[in-house]
Amino acid sequence: MKTLKIDHVGVAVRSAEESAKLFSNVLGLEIETELLDKEKLKIIMAKVGESNIELLEDLDTQGTIAKFIEKHGEGLHHIAFEVDDVNEAVKTMKENGYRVLSEPHPGAGGTVVAFVHPKDTHGILLELVERNRH
Amino acid sequence: MKTLKIDHVGVAVRSAEESAKLFSNVLGLEIETELLDKEKLKIIMAKVGESNIELLEDLDTQGTIAKFIEKHGEGLHHIAFEVDDVNEAVKTMKENGYRVLSEPHPGAGGTVVAFVHPKDTHGILLELVERNRH
Repeated sequence: MKTLKIDHVGVAVRSAEESAKLFSNVLGLEIETELLDKEKLKIIMAKVGESNIELLEDLDTQGTIAKFIEKHGEGLHHIAFEVDDVNEAVKTMKENGYRVLSEPHPGAGGTVVAFVHPKDTHGILLELVERNRH
Repeated sequence: MKTLKIDHVGVAVRSAEESAKLFSNVLGLEIETELLDKEKLKIIMAKVGESNIELLEDLDTQGTIAKFIEKHGEGLHHIAFEVDDVNEAVKTMKENGYRVLSEPHPGAGGTVVAFVHPKDTHGILLELVERNRH
């Protein structure tokens, strides 16, 4: 299993549009808006080098992101690494005693993703992303 | 002013060595340990693609990282972007109404760095890093 790069850093925000101003107007990054109907999320991606900043706005006041903000305020939410094989990555995590929050499942844009429990990773909510699965 | 990449993501941890196991043994990343005597910090850098994960362990129980952990627990602490000109970046930030926590000053390895106030950036503690200044 190979870890290739930081795929994205997820940020919990009240208004994706409001937060995106920092990344587009000030830092000069290209942004792209996405609506995830099923997850009730509005996402703005800001491309920076080989990675993205993922601004997450909850459209559901009882959703995961809304609850995160209620508890912690706005801010850094998770970090996602691109790996070449997410099934193998999850297997390795488990063998090393890390609990997996969600088994590999389809993510945005044809990816396969899994989440690791932050209690086992020093408070870091870790996402593993496999792109370009053949 | 150009924003080039995620330079690093800083993580506040109780033991850099303990946390590094996740990044070296499990995710297979190369790591490097640094002691910052003046700042009383032990840092382990884990290289991933063009970026680094910066594990920050406070050697001073009254230090910034120790206090952060006391308040929030371990976890994501800040995100650093590499820019081509940190002075210009800070100027642009100020013109757009963002408060700068610390003016550009020397960072590790010949860099020049500045921090932006998280109250103005939706809870994200933002570091701006200029490398290779001529």
